[in-house]
Amino acid sequence: MSRVYLDWNATAPLRPEARAAMLSAMEAVGNPSSVHAEGRGAKAIVERARAQIAAAVGASNSDIVFTSGATEAAALALAGRDLASAAVEHDCVGAWTHGDLSVDQYGAVEVSDPAQSTVQVANSETGVVAVLPEGLAVTDAVQAIGKVPFAFSWSGADMAFVSAHKFGGPKGVGALVLKQGLDPKALLKGGGQEMGWRAGTENIIGIAGMGAAAEAALRDLEAGVMDAVAERRDALEVRLKAGCPDLILMGEGAKRLPNTSCFAVPGWKGETQVMQMDLAGFAISAGSACSSGKVKASKVIRAMGHDELTASSVVRVSIGTDTTMDELDSFATAWLRQYEKFRARAA
Amino acid sequence: MSRVYLDWNATAPLRPEARAAMLSAMEAVGNPSSVHAEGRGAKAIVERARAQIAAAVGASNSDIVFTSGATEAAALALAGRDLASAAVEHDCVGAWTHGDLSVDQYGAVEVSDPAQSTVQVANSETGVVAVLPEGLAVTDAVQAIGKVPFAFSWSGADMAFVSAHKFGGPKGVGALVLKQGLDPKALLKGGGQEMGWRAGTENIIGIAGMGAAAEAALRDLEAGVMDAVAERRDALEVRLKAGCPDLILMGEGAKRLPNTSCFAVPGWKGETQVMQMDLAGFAISAGSACSSGKVKASKVIRAMGHDELTASSVVRVSIGTDTTMDELDSFATAWLRQYEKFRARAA
Repeated sequence: MSRVYLDWNATAPLRPEARAAMLSAMEAVGNPSSVHAEGRGAKAIVERARAQIAAAVGASNSDIVFTSGATEAAALALAGRDLASAAVEHDCVGAWTHGDLSVDQYGAVEVSDPAQSTVQVANSETGVVAVLPEGLAVTDAVQAIGKVPFAFSWSGADMAFVSAHKFGGPKGVGALVLKQGLDPKALLKGGGQEMGWRAGTENIIGIAGMGAAAEAALRDLEAGVMDAVAERRDALEVRLKAGCPDLILMGEGAKRLPNTSCFAVPGWKGETQVMQMDLAGFAISAGSACSSGKVKASKVIRAMGHDELTASSVVRVSIGTDTTMDELDSFATAWLRQYEKFRARAA
Repeated sequence: MSRVYLDWNATAPLRPEARAAMLSAMEAVGNPSSVHAEGRGAKAIVERARAQIAAAVGASNSDIVFTSGATEAAALALAGRDLASAAVEHDCVGAWTHGDLSVDQYGAVEVSDPAQSTVQVANSETGVVAVLPEGLAVTDAVQAIGKVPFAFSWSGADMAFVSAHKFGGPKGVGALVLKQGLDPKALLKGGGQEMGWRAGTENIIGIAGMGAAAEAALRDLEAGVMDAVAERRDALEVRLKAGCPDLILMGEGAKRLPNTSCFAVPGWKGETQVMQMDLAGFAISAGSACSSGKVKASKVIRAMGHDELTASSVVRVSIGTDTTMDELDSFATAWLRQYEKFRARAA
């Protein structure tokens, strides 16, 4: 049975452009820190990707610090600063912040002191897109890149962080984007790479893949590819609501990412739905992919004011450029079939 | 003009086995933390590589914590512990330790309290191989893997760290190896991956490459491939010494890595030699590749008791499984030609 992958917010398939750039980078033999021709060749690959990523996130080349992913970039941006955050932030932000900012029913974070706060551009579970306050210390732009226009220079934030594998690059590479003049405290020390902010021999193959994916994601976004994705997502939601009158669509009425649909049928556990859909050939998610399969009530949904039962009954469908309407129709059919069984059991 | 790459200790070319494993991992679409089939498939790739690496470094699967490289693994092992080290250690160790251990003329580190010290298995510049004291807190095994037999379980060390790109894996992936019962303080937090010691979505493609490279490196080592490398390295040294009577061979008489030759002609700057050889088509190094081309007097050579002039005149030739005797002969010819010019100018 062929599978249908509807979990693009957890990780997106590798774009062909990223694959090609990675294959090419595999041929580069040198260490970017070496001064000989092989070293300079490796360095050129890193710098080319830096320019591609800077262009895709609306920043300057010198604003980009490569990391091993968003989790590391978040730690580099946040460790030791004790900024304020809301419960809707990713755990890699929550680990370094005090979570006392409140959230409205649409998932919007209420910020009192932007310079001492961190707010995500878009939520991974609900897809809700924020209006960032001017002068924000740090923003998690992971889910935004390639899905909605984002320009770091215009965001009003001092720092942002991004992850390659959310926009079709490889897993294990990301970047911190920072305004000139800022000087984050290095977590990894020793080799002096990345202006001294991040030591360690560069993940050249991954960085090349990230650069190519960023370029392709920007091209797709500018070509309106995500508008078409939003149309398919909207059509799916219309079908689900038509067949399931008690569906609660999270963030409905708020601005959301074009690819994300997060919904609950209170009492039908998200974990159960994920398993049932997996057996039927569909990969969806109950909340964030992290924490190794531990499926708990979503703290994001709780923060938006929903009760524990609803928060443990959410699932997320997140689609991508390759997802077809046929795939979504077959998902809707399979999901509604299981929904009917749930209703019959519950009755 | 075809190039000859003689800087394998800075970074080794990607092994074909690693390349193949990475290409295969590119097809895996899931996030290893996801519970659906795609997630489980991605997780299986990570776990297969973990087993390959555990076998290659003589450890158990559960001893391996994947990181973004040796620099991160060193930070995870060393940060906040203030262990003692010697000046011969890599900068990623020196950054977290107090460097008051002394070194003899062969580069051997004198350790008084192993439980509070870190000592490398082999030095990247000289190739000198240590006899590790029993009960050592941490060892840098980066340059040892694939070159000399190393079994973590027999090393007497509580923790070791390794880097994929030194044995034919990709850059940007490594591991901390640790004894059961130890609990290092996580630097990257949030997602709960790697038993909570290292959060962040796994670099699946890089990890797959590291696993395949580790397996291939172990196979080569067991087949005696490095003995043949040592013979070629020794033959090179015989030729260089015959043509250059004032050559100082670093670590001569000590046990050294089979692939490494580090030598000086006092007064002929290492930096100059690297440039001259680069123009002649050969990639060699003056000391460690890090610190982005800043070529200073080698602190390793200074620690072994040599003067500043000698320490700024060292170069390193580090070869690999693919390096042929013809390549080394052509290097010796080119190097000796430049040496004669240096002698003529100095006279």
